[in-house]
Amino acid sequence: MSSSGTTTHDGTGTHRGQDTGREHVWSVDEHLEDILAAVRPLEPIELQLLDAQGCVLVEDVTVPVSLPPFDNSSMDGYAVRAADVAGAGEEFPAVLTVVGDVAAGQGEQPAVGPGQAARIMTGAPLPPGAEAVVPVEWTDGGLGEGPVSGMRAHSAAPEGASGEVRVYRPAKARAHVRARGSDVRAGDRALSAGTVLGAPQIALLAAIGRGTVTVRPRPRVVVLSTGSELVQPGEELADGQIYDSNSFSLTAAAREAGAIAYRVGAVADDAETLRSTIEDQLIRADLVVTTGGVSVGAYDVVKEALSALGDPDDEEGLGAGGGVEFRKLAMQPGKPQGFGSIGPDHTPLLALPGNPVSSYVSFEVFVRPAVRALMGLPDVHRATARARLSTAQALTSPSGKRQFLRGRHDAEAGTVTPVGGSGSHLVAALAQADALIVVPEDTTSVEPGAEVDVVLLG
Amino acid sequence: MSSSGTTTHDGTGTHRGQDTGREHVWSVDEHLEDILAAVRPLEPIELQLLDAQGCVLVEDVTVPVSLPPFDNSSMDGYAVRAADVAGAGEEFPAVLTVVGDVAAGQGEQPAVGPGQAARIMTGAPLPPGAEAVVPVEWTDGGLGEGPVSGMRAHSAAPEGASGEVRVYRPAKARAHVRARGSDVRAGDRALSAGTVLGAPQIALLAAIGRGTVTVRPRPRVVVLSTGSELVQPGEELADGQIYDSNSFSLTAAAREAGAIAYRVGAVADDAETLRSTIEDQLIRADLVVTTGGVSVGAYDVVKEALSALGDPDDEEGLGAGGGVEFRKLAMQPGKPQGFGSIGPDHTPLLALPGNPVSSYVSFEVFVRPAVRALMGLPDVHRATARARLSTAQALTSPSGKRQFLRGRHDAEAGTVTPVGGSGSHLVAALAQADALIVVPEDTTSVEPGAEVDVVLLG
Repeated sequence: MSSSGTTTHDGTGTHRGQDTGREHVWSVDEHLEDILAAVRPLEPIELQLLDAQGCVLVEDVTVPVSLPPFDNSSMDGYAVRAADVAGAGEEFPAVLTVVGDVAAGQGEQPAVGPGQAARIMTGAPLPPGAEAVVPVEWTDGGLGEGPVSGMRAHSAAPEGASGEVRVYRPAKARAHVRARGSDVRAGDRALSAGTVLGAPQIALLAAIGRGTVTVRPRPRVVVLSTGSELVQPGEELADGQIYDSNSFSLTAAAREAGAIAYRVGAVADDAETLRSTIEDQLIRADLVVTTGGVSVGAYDVVKEALSALGDPDDEEGLGAGGGVEFRKLAMQPGKPQGFGSIGPDHTPLLALPGNPVSSYVSFEVFVRPAVRALMGLPDVHRATARARLSTAQALTSPSGKRQFLRGRHDAEAGTVTPVGGSGSHLVAALAQADALIVVPEDTTSVEPGAEVDVVLLG
Repeated sequence: MSSSGTTTHDGTGTHRGQDTGREHVWSVDEHLEDILAAVRPLEPIELQLLDAQGCVLVEDVTVPVSLPPFDNSSMDGYAVRAADVAGAGEEFPAVLTVVGDVAAGQGEQPAVGPGQAARIMTGAPLPPGAEAVVPVEWTDGGLGEGPVSGMRAHSAAPEGASGEVRVYRPAKARAHVRARGSDVRAGDRALSAGTVLGAPQIALLAAIGRGTVTVRPRPRVVVLSTGSELVQPGEELADGQIYDSNSFSLTAAAREAGAIAYRVGAVADDAETLRSTIEDQLIRADLVVTTGGVSVGAYDVVKEALSALGDPDDEEGLGAGGGVEFRKLAMQPGKPQGFGSIGPDHTPLLALPGNPVSSYVSFEVFVRPAVRALMGLPDVHRATARARLSTAQALTSPSGKRQFLRGRHDAEAGTVTPVGGSGSHLVAALAQADALIVVPEDTTSVEPGAEVDVVLLG
């Protein structure tokens, strides 16, 4: 966070050091850069493999033992010596004595001498003496009645592990044998630090025997909304009340971003209550997100509770973190924003505006990158695209502000269609959107058919 | 599952009805269609809003109460009568008597008479008598010293709710007022059945007061691998043993697909043990996925345990589901596959081959669509793209088989580069892949630079 920030005596506004009276208006990029410069990836921890899914590996993982760890069969069939089947054909099959079964995971293996074969299963070690595997479909399966399509279960027909087998096709040495180390060799780099662990990477880690890995954990995000007018969905509304939606939508958005999110719910507009609620939550927070109470009103309790912090004598309380700076941004929606750190662990806190659309857009633009920075992910941003604006009339946008409009993106057609208007309370339209249309600061009008940047929401 | 499927007496192969002795080889599309025709979306349940994230809504949700539920202020400022500020300017401000505060969520509101104003906060109801809101920045904030940038906190300066305020700009009736019902109206359709619930949809549902919704739940997927050679990662390998990776990778893949996945781990190659393990798991399974033991070997225990099922007298056991059919597919990797239903609830079961790459590719091609069909999702398939093959020499592919090679996709360049070879044990290469390259059945060679279909993995 900017070290040049200072808080005015009455807590109503914040100036930058170089400011000469008029409040500095931050650009979207300045505010985001400030956040990303302050938010550090979480300290790595060792996690069980499946708990590390979606996390970033912080160690270079080396292969401790070659894969496969031994020469093994790639087919169900018979392990043979190449010379014994060299001349085999449909008319003159090689007739070999079956000396036993080699199943995967079986301790002892029968040795295969000249004129002998061992019945072998996929993945089982090539037994001593054998040089190649002939698939069971190239044999009579020991039944003496021509080529078969498979073996009978050992439990139902144990005699298959003995007797004679006819082999109808030759096999060269190493045929259908997977060589030791042909997948990875001991000492090879399996995965590099920085890799995001998905199912294929977890497959490899398990395959080389890693039960745990060192990764950056998922950040724990505490979400709380503020406002004395807020009622929990499902309850009755009294006059002047509305339902709390932000604590639900931002908890969902934080989970979607990769966080472990805790929804605290709505806190009334009382600075002391808010301060103690946040203090209680710090124990489980890597990031605190609040909504509402950040503007210029007389009951903007987040601003009131947090902008006075930063007391150097406060070594235990919220003020220990250095305090929260409240800013005006050149952004629509999302003009009032707060950012800083609180508490003895300097836990980052983002204070978003309270309108549901403003808070959701603010989450997408500022909180999601912060969550992903905490995870140490290489790319903290949503995918973007260029699209032609599909609309009947030109869009207008205020000069000097970056506007984020809700839209529906058609990737095939390469178009984006605005849904709803620019009003920050249009949560119904938000629910129809799958993209944000970005209108730059210096653009005040976008004609139908013009190319625009869109942020793709998931 | 195909009603024409029958199981041969010895459990080694399965024929379709029209088959005349030679085993039917299923195409990838036939097998997938058979699975998707049999798998039905799960029965809907009512869930708390945040538990429904990612799920499919099965009800049309109607707006019970208009949003906003009352005319309210879009700014922090003063609620006024339009006539009182009609002539206001910097030089000759309108001077109004402040009759009190209107904060969001406050019960009583002061009436605004001629010559009066009420200090009002964003989201607070427009008080009786008032017609418009002037933002605080257009006033002296009651301080008598020219335009201000905000209000002082009510707790610190309660006198702000009384005295006089100078208004420097006129405001028309309804200025800065959000009209009741301007977002959604009671009786409107908020969301339609079939909508997937992400953060923006959860925002709308909460905003209209829905604490719970009726959705199709996430399927519970039980994952178990089979093989007496399998050892849990982190433990010591003995001769002939390898680490169990499939139960880890497929559990991760099932979670990534949207399921609640339970990793049972590795079961030894014993039909009775396997059968009783599966039977124990049925209580928490909407889908069972096994790996290994599905080929033509004498120890292919999944096939042995499950292909003999379908006993009409078995009303409680695994056989009640109708049994599992084992097939050969025209696919590489992934030739041997099993599919059917088991137990009294006819729980679907997919039996995948045991090689790590085969099982992962089989999961992507067959299990993932099944998981998403259980969720009732509109699109069960991964995104695909066309890409030019970036490789030094032509790829070869067996005739008559659909081949899935692992590759790295470069969306910007429009290319895909194969990683590793076609061997089904190359799990190291799989961990570098982010796409599957699809080589169709009738293609035996793909030249460098040729266009291919790729399946994008997440």
